[in-house]
Amino acid sequence: MEFTLHQVAHMLGGEVKGNGDETVNMLAKIQEAKKGQITFLSNPKYEQYIYVTQASAVIVNKDFVPKKPITSSLIVVEDAYISFTSLLEEYHKLISFQKTGIEHPSYAGENLVAGENIYRGAFSYIGNDVKIGNNVKVYPHVFVGDSVTIGDNTILHPNVKLYAGTRIGNHCEIHAGTVIGSDGFGFAPQDDGSYKAIPQMGNVIIEDHVCIGANTVIDCATLAGDSTIIRRGVKLDNLIQVAHNVEIGKNTVIAAQTGISGSTKVGENCIIAGQVGMAGHITIANKTGIGAQAGILKSVTEEGQQIIGAPAFDKKEYYRAYAVFKQLPDLNTRLRELHNKVQQLQEKLESAPVQSR
Amino acid sequence: MEFTLHQVAHMLGGEVKGNGDETVNMLAKIQEAKKGQITFLSNPKYEQYIYVTQASAVIVNKDFVPKKPITSSLIVVEDAYISFTSLLEEYHKLISFQKTGIEHPSYAGENLVAGENIYRGAFSYIGNDVKIGNNVKVYPHVFVGDSVTIGDNTILHPNVKLYAGTRIGNHCEIHAGTVIGSDGFGFAPQDDGSYKAIPQMGNVIIEDHVCIGANTVIDCATLAGDSTIIRRGVKLDNLIQVAHNVEIGKNTVIAAQTGISGSTKVGENCIIAGQVGMAGHITIANKTGIGAQAGILKSVTEEGQQIIGAPAFDKKEYYRAYAVFKQLPDLNTRLRELHNKVQQLQEKLESAPVQSR
Amino acid sequence: MEFTLHQVAHMLGGEVKGNGDETVNMLAKIQEAKKGQITFLSNPKYEQYIYVTQASAVIVNKDFVPKKPITSSLIVVEDAYISFTSLLEEYHKLISFQKTGIEHPSYAGENLVAGENIYRGAFSYIGNDVKIGNNVKVYPHVFVGDSVTIGDNTILHPNVKLYAGTRIGNHCEIHAGTVIGSDGFGFAPQDDGSYKAIPQMGNVIIEDHVCIGANTVIDCATLAGDSTIIRRGVKLDNLIQVAHNVEIGKNTVIAAQTGISGSTKVGENCIIAGQVGMAGHITIANKTGIGAQAGILKSVTEEGQQIIGAPAFDKKEYYRAYAVFKQLPDLNTRLRELHNKVQQLQEKLESAPVQSR
Repeated sequence: MEFTLHQVAHMLGGEVKGNGDETVNMLAKIQEAKKGQITFLSNPKYEQYIYVTQASAVIVNKDFVPKKPITSSLIVVEDAYISFTSLLEEYHKLISFQKTGIEHPSYAGENLVAGENIYRGAFSYIGNDVKIGNNVKVYPHVFVGDSVTIGDNTILHPNVKLYAGTRIGNHCEIHAGTVIGSDGFGFAPQDDGSYKAIPQMGNVIIEDHVCIGANTVIDCATLAGDSTIIRRGVKLDNLIQVAHNVEIGKNTVIAAQTGISGSTKVGENCIIAGQVGMAGHITIANKTGIGAQAGILKSVTEEGQQIIGAPAFDKKEYYRAYAVFKQLPDLNTRLRELHNKVQQLQEKLESAPVQSR
Repeated sequence: MEFTLHQVAHMLGGEVKGNGDETVNMLAKIQEAKKGQITFLSNPKYEQYIYVTQASAVIVNKDFVPKKPITSSLIVVEDAYISFTSLLEEYHKLISFQKTGIEHPSYAGENLVAGENIYRGAFSYIGNDVKIGNNVKVYPHVFVGDSVTIGDNTILHPNVKLYAGTRIGNHCEIHAGTVIGSDGFGFAPQDDGSYKAIPQMGNVIIEDHVCIGANTVIDCATLAGDSTIIRRGVKLDNLIQVAHNVEIGKNTVIAAQTGISGSTKVGENCIIAGQVGMAGHITIANKTGIGAQAGILKSVTEEGQQIIGAPAFDKKEYYRAYAVFKQLPDLNTRLRELHNKVQQLQEKLESAPVQSR
Repeated sequence: MEFTLHQVAHMLGGEVKGNGDETVNMLAKIQEAKKGQITFLSNPKYEQYIYVTQASAVIVNKDFVPKKPITSSLIVVEDAYISFTSLLEEYHKLISFQKTGIEHPSYAGENLVAGENIYRGAFSYIGNDVKIGNNVKVYPHVFVGDSVTIGDNTILHPNVKLYAGTRIGNHCEIHAGTVIGSDGFGFAPQDDGSYKAIPQMGNVIIEDHVCIGANTVIDCATLAGDSTIIRRGVKLDNLIQVAHNVEIGKNTVIAAQTGISGSTKVGENCIIAGQVGMAGHITIANKTGIGAQAGILKSVTEEGQQIIGAPAFDKKEYYRAYAVFKQLPDLNTRLRELHNKVQQLQEKLESAPVQSR
């Protein structure tokens, strides 16, 4: 697919400076762009590259003033970053997977209610009493348990597993191998030292516009009628553990390999880094920022804190403490030397006592 | 499904106080229970709720003495908590997945020996020379390699993968996406800096009453005839890594995202929290408790210890040390100030020497 | 399969001391070997076992001089360890999975170009425009997206998922449940606090001789034309997270549950332990050794360093600092006591001032 710079500028509501009839067929980073490709300059840090790039065209901000000659054509827009990402999106739609229909063999149980324009890949499995909205893509090897509902425009990548009773909203995307609705980790200790599994009968509810990475696991709630809930707009990365009865608030973003223990409530608009661990039955305030590998043992009650460490506390204080931690052997030596010095002073003072007046 | 309170009391060996003909159809937590639901009160912490709940019935201990009027009917039993969990179990059996038979298409190789009352879901794959006990459920997309044996009443959720030679006991439950028997991570360094894979030829043995979460991985042992072994009653959560030749002792419980390196032996009745890492070739004594995110580098030889940290040591000592860690910048300042003070004292002492007697 | 010791010695270019007609049918560790089995002695630490083993034969180094009588036959070779591993390999080839051909049902899209001697398991799915080399094994439930290419002699274990556009080299082995090419975790914050997914259009390139464990995830690069790259000879363990645009250098080895954030470049011949976390956009020098659970926040620029901690620094220094950390409460007490002592000295000095001369 090729576009002229005029076409691109028109799409972005921008203006061409250079040859508008030149064509581009690929998007690229400004450090790497070649002839036939289009790139953008938004962050001034990368300005140096615009003077040497071989890109056919660079999207720039209206207020960009070149300090040297530029050989590429320019497309001048309000906001180069936003324009570039919307270009990415358009391009993505053009090249992305547009299959619809049912590949064979695939399996569907009784009472399937399915919307229009659906893709059901080969070897996908749909249980009884399932409801699927319009434009849904169910890739090969997906398992949809009994009584699951899936909203419009949702994409289930290969091998997503939805246990019975799971409810997924509209415009969600779930990547390969992710498991939703598996049993929570609940066992009652017995007198003989063994454990008895407590039946897990709740479900998982995933609201609209949620994205979930690959090989992540979200357990169901314990009691029938209860749900583990992932609120609207949440973004979860790969290999994350979300235990039973957890609730993750609107627009919270969580990076890979983080784990959240049972019944914990995470607030809205939190940003949580990778490999974080959270204890169970705690509450995390809205807009909390949690650094990588932190261990959260207590509730975070004040909004907007930045914390790290295990147990976690204020990020800046953590790094200050850690700076001293690195010098602990030296600090220990200094303390020992000081102790000796004081000892000597004391001895001196005692062996040669001052004359009392 | 509805039950009268008389029926429920009869099942639990308890006694109704109130209207025994009233019906209930759902179990719920005491904070959330509504009309038509049954709940329980065991922990005195929750007593406040029994005076305001709308539950149709509350299961209570024999020795419970109300301090205010209660509108719900009561079912009086020996132990309300145990009664409630056994009710949960009964309910779970009633509503849970009762499919049997073979869905199509599914695949079975040569010489399959299968018990009675088995479910084999669509797209499940069973290799050659496999033995399956009675009442086993093999969900869709499960892969059972050659020469695998599976005991009675075991459940393999969608997409469980059992490599060739795996042996699973009776009454086990393995959740979606878990991989059992993959190659251990063994590579011999070569002179040119590359690595050569060491063939992994052992298997995995899983004894009776073992539960394993979703997307967990258990590697096979290295040598033919050797096994990675998960003993009777072990409970493993989601996304756990169990390396080659590991052995996990009876009734040990391990939370999500923990990793155990090759050839390590974990004792019986240990309780291991999430995101713990264990080095290879070590031994963990029975009844060891390991806190979240701990790093275990050496064997734990004394039973019943509680440890945390990386490297891990006594839990209480860790938290005491961590309390000081948080104040390290302050401690550092105090040491510096004290140093200056001593310096001054010394100067004072030297510049104004004491008179010798 | 049974072999005489003569046959084994011939295969290894060694010499039998004992009964060359005796047969063995299994390999075992020297501590555990029984009659009918063959083992080896290389590490002098295990020498004690050779005098008590019931193994039919022990492979030993040419320069091994027994200190006591040995009942087993010996096979004398240049290097017992290398001989034993090559024996393991031969044995593995003999017993390992030799299926070829296409099991049914399986699915292949349009324009498949496939080499000779391929195995395609039941329920495997191959998209359009896929190229597969010779001797490739595609196990059941594998998903191969559109336009994927796979080199010669590569093994895809059950349920491996390759997103569209992935390129895999020759002699690779990828274990069950691993996902390659899923979307990178890229979201643009919007004014209303929500996030918009940035289309992920690059791919993943995996070079020759790469081994990847089970349930690992490797995300695709963000921009079309860009790739996440795993170089020749890399070995990745289970449950690892490799984010978008990461590059892992030749012969680097990474243990289970480690996570690497977006755009980070890991050097060649690094050895990275389990549960390590790396920040994004950093560079790790060649031959870096990283200890378990380390957190790498900054680039490592000097080759051959050994680091640990979070943030990581020199391994020896870390352990020295940690030794003091464990005694922090004591150190704190010593500082307080010293402070009091200095206070007393000062008071003494002031209350009993020295006589001025």
